[in-house]
Amino acid sequence: MSQSVQALLFDVFGTVVDWREGVARDAAAFLQRHPGARQDAYAFADVWRGRYSPSMEVVRAGRRPFTRLDQLHRENLEATLPAFGIDPASVPEDQLQWLNRAWHRLDPWPDSVAGLTRLKARYIVATLSNGNTSLLLNMAKYAGLPWDAILGAEAAQAYKPTPQAYLRTAELLDLPPERICLVAAHNGDLAAARQCGLKAAFVARPREFGPEQQTDLVAEQDWDWVAGNLIELAAQFQA
Amino acid sequence: MSQSVQALLFDVFGTVVDWREGVARDAAAFLQRHPGARQDAYAFADVWRGRYSPSMEVVRAGRRPFTRLDQLHRENLEATLPAFGIDPASVPEDQLQWLNRAWHRLDPWPDSVAGLTRLKARYIVATLSNGNTSLLLNMAKYAGLPWDAILGAEAAQAYKPTPQAYLRTAELLDLPPERICLVAAHNGDLAAARQCGLKAAFVARPREFGPEQQTDLVAEQDWDWVAGNLIELAAQFQA
Repeated sequence: MSQSVQALLFDVFGTVVDWREGVARDAAAFLQRHPGARQDAYAFADVWRGRYSPSMEVVRAGRRPFTRLDQLHRENLEATLPAFGIDPASVPEDQLQWLNRAWHRLDPWPDSVAGLTRLKARYIVATLSNGNTSLLLNMAKYAGLPWDAILGAEAAQAYKPTPQAYLRTAELLDLPPERICLVAAHNGDLAAARQCGLKAAFVARPREFGPEQQTDLVAEQDWDWVAGNLIELAAQFQA
Repeated sequence: MSQSVQALLFDVFGTVVDWREGVARDAAAFLQRHPGARQDAYAFADVWRGRYSPSMEVVRAGRRPFTRLDQLHRENLEATLPAFGIDPASVPEDQLQWLNRAWHRLDPWPDSVAGLTRLKARYIVATLSNGNTSLLLNMAKYAGLPWDAILGAEAAQAYKPTPQAYLRTAELLDLPPERICLVAAHNGDLAAARQCGLKAAFVARPREFGPEQQTDLVAEQDWDWVAGNLIELAAQFQA
């Protein structure tokens, strides 16, 4: 079956990079500059990330024009700060910008670069992420992710799991959906991709949301491929 | 000055790859399958390419919605065949598709991969081409071009030298135009980029149009950088 796939498209946050550790690392440095603030960097990462899906939902529902993720992250950051005892208006602009770009400075999971490098030798490997182009590009330079192309929500002008996010990406690649495989650690993303005719590969990332993670621990459908990490996936794809 | 530049964006046809040799090579193979046809593969490449700018001009002038280059190439191919004694309706569809994708199979100039690889270590290197995304992506896989991102007309939905082609690309990169340098072998492309506030680097490709080339032999303005090839350019950028 892998013979017919020409492009592997990757969800990025959680699937390729560890957003929680990366955001918590930079949040810790930020919080230390605000001694009166609640010093819980993991909680900060979780609360900030908790606003991610609701903020995209406004766009997905058509109540707001397409807005890049950097902007949503910024609004969500300002909404997060008060719960940690910080008035956003009191924070210098360059500190806010620096913290907001924590999402550009995320480390890959230990297997990501090696797995992608192997897959790249035989397939197109590209992003299909809700992150905006510059975020994903800066992250790739930071983390050494060897993408052939940066695709996803901004190029498609639609956030996953809206069908247009998958279908417009297939159109940009000029490939029928069945020649494309989405790789993701999230069953919901894969289900939406399969609805659009893409193949689906589940990669387990059971600590994406920290040690207490309850969701997406296992494949919840008979996905076309299921792997424990991207090196295992490369082996399944004979790459 | 190079300190302030973060991204080098490249014109591709002629600047990075030798379209004339590549198209003539595949045209020769195609023409040999049509023994009654005029067997002049370089003339075929030149006539086909001659229709390139006029076909984009219809889009640039707003008389046609944005149409990807693969489609314009296909229409231009069908318009070119009769002058070589071939009725396009008599050619099997797979042969037409194969020949049209000659533009996906172009070889780099001898210095391109080495120069881009050096520049990539210090800068974002991406396309800013009128080629569509899948064309540029397939070419990169074929030719080993190490792009960080595939940008240009299709992502911007505007053909160079329309200002939107440069400005929307800057927006996708989330960089002010002056932090971006366009690298091109064509003075006109560089002039349009400079009008938009980008930096400009001229790379001489005096045989792009064959041994009789009359245009773009030298830098016609005081471009920010002028180089004989991409390895020289990398040295000028301390990369």
